[in-house]
Amino acid sequence: MKRVVVLTGGVGGAKLVLGLSRIMAGDGLTAIVNTGDDFRHLGLHISPDIDTLLYTLSGKANGAQGWGREGESWSFMAALRELGGEDWFQLGDGDLALHVARTHALAQGRSLSQITARFADQWGIATRILPMSDQTVATILDTDQGRLEFQRYFVEQRCAPAVRHIMFEGATHAVPAPAVIEAIQSADAVLIAPSNPFLSVDPLLAVPGIGSAIERTKAPVIAVSPLVGGTAVKGPTAKLMQELRMAVDNDSIARHYAGLIDGILIDSGDRCEAPDIVVGRCATLMTTLDDKIRVAQAALDLAIALRP
Amino acid sequence: MKRVVVLTGGVGGAKLVLGLSRIMAGDGLTAIVNTGDDFRHLGLHISPDIDTLLYTLSGKANGAQGWGREGESWSFMAALRELGGEDWFQLGDGDLALHVARTHALAQGRSLSQITARFADQWGIATRILPMSDQTVATILDTDQGRLEFQRYFVEQRCAPAVRHIMFEGATHAVPAPAVIEAIQSADAVLIAPSNPFLSVDPLLAVPGIGSAIERTKAPVIAVSPLVGGTAVKGPTAKLMQELRMAVDNDSIARHYAGLIDGILIDSGDRCEAPDIVVGRCATLMTTLDDKIRVAQAALDLAIALRP
Repeated sequence: MKRVVVLTGGVGGAKLVLGLSRIMAGDGLTAIVNTGDDFRHLGLHISPDIDTLLYTLSGKANGAQGWGREGESWSFMAALRELGGEDWFQLGDGDLALHVARTHALAQGRSLSQITARFADQWGIATRILPMSDQTVATILDTDQGRLEFQRYFVEQRCAPAVRHIMFEGATHAVPAPAVIEAIQSADAVLIAPSNPFLSVDPLLAVPGIGSAIERTKAPVIAVSPLVGGTAVKGPTAKLMQELRMAVDNDSIARHYAGLIDGILIDSGDRCEAPDIVVGRCATLMTTLDDKIRVAQAALDLAIALRP
Repeated sequence: MKRVVVLTGGVGGAKLVLGLSRIMAGDGLTAIVNTGDDFRHLGLHISPDIDTLLYTLSGKANGAQGWGREGESWSFMAALRELGGEDWFQLGDGDLALHVARTHALAQGRSLSQITARFADQWGIATRILPMSDQTVATILDTDQGRLEFQRYFVEQRCAPAVRHIMFEGATHAVPAPAVIEAIQSADAVLIAPSNPFLSVDPLLAVPGIGSAIERTKAPVIAVSPLVGGTAVKGPTAKLMQELRMAVDNDSIARHYAGLIDGILIDSGDRCEAPDIVVGRCATLMTTLDDKIRVAQAALDLAIALRP
């Protein structure tokens, strides 16, 4: 497995990518990252999933908190509150550097891909990080509280509203970022990280060309299930599945990815009986670095077993 | 003296305004502030002289450092450096809140006047703070190192280049901010703060209508000299006067303001022999709050003595 592509979203996905990056030679690993969570806040362009991956791979992530930087300070937020500014979205002082530098570079005509590559390079990250698209795709939720932008649902409302439908605004006109399709086509394996299938992976698959490239590849495609013991490790996956009237189990996850995946990696104690999908098992909870390497290795092993 | 207008720039000016604010009823004092130093940095709109005044009047200024906020933290700059960002201009974490909030509000169509008034209101500042103009006026220096924007000269080059000529780009098309002319016309006295006459006060006078309103007012107009003992308390005033081939003395300051001022307040130990200008004296060095109140009172006393 010289060239591996992983489709990834937020924290759970970043853990798998970190594990993979410790196993594989740097330039063989490409992460294609969800940007459906991206938004403008106070005029700043914020790319939460790209940032989480940058922080995780450079060793700057706040592991305990699950987002943002380790050792962050909060003077900006305190001063913003004094000015009567919006404070529902937390922006750490160090974290702001990414947002300000990105927003400035975008205004100067650089693409999100170029900017992300430059940040990764500055921080010595060998893994190639590609945004799914350089165009704007916005995840919008139709809920019992009305239509909500992703961060309003996820951060401000803490996922409390019941979701009826999820939309990816702009997706039909978006094109995959440069190198995305080529990376999928030349990959020896494609992995789908244990990110939220509906909120983190579906936006990626909604960008025209990405889903079909994965359908067409002869390389094995393996999903790592986000469920452990019938619930999600983190975030609203299980609640969302109930609201969307699915059973909260690996069969539902496998069915959701039907036509795309050849195998699914699930937790040792769990079951999956989806037809035509090969099931791999390991302890999928990723707390320590060893956990992340173990899950990454198990996903690669399943891919190797399914090589054509 | 119910209504007093003060034309002001950076740190020295803010000290005088603070002194005045402790003597006068809040809504009687209007500060018209230089915005020729304003610039865009990393996409953020920075208004150094307005910020210095906001910090000074709200008790947040870092007195020892002479700029920025007391108790500031610097995580943003450290993170920006890690990203390879421009670091010649220091942006404190708390200070960033002003720049981000201002830039965002400008992008939403608010004017610099409206934004400044809202910030002052949030911080409980009674003094009315008016930018000289809501349009862009940029102080540009023609130097022996070429043409330099103000902050490049002042911060990056630490005023080292020799100045040959000073320009105020955009001034001819700018209009005074709302309430500026009315404030001058209805003032019982107009003061010119001990700010740099060439870099901080001249941009104000370059905005069409401001200089002529001051020429026409029947109210006394008093300049407080920035020189003490033949040199400037702070900043490049003395060096600049030499480069512009002026004697570094109060006569030169008075001559520079000829036609505008009726009186000049100079330091007790200094001289001024300009014709037709009434000279007031006090110890003009402003270190403590008592110093600031003393100088403010002396300027007001001179204005009272010159009342028509």
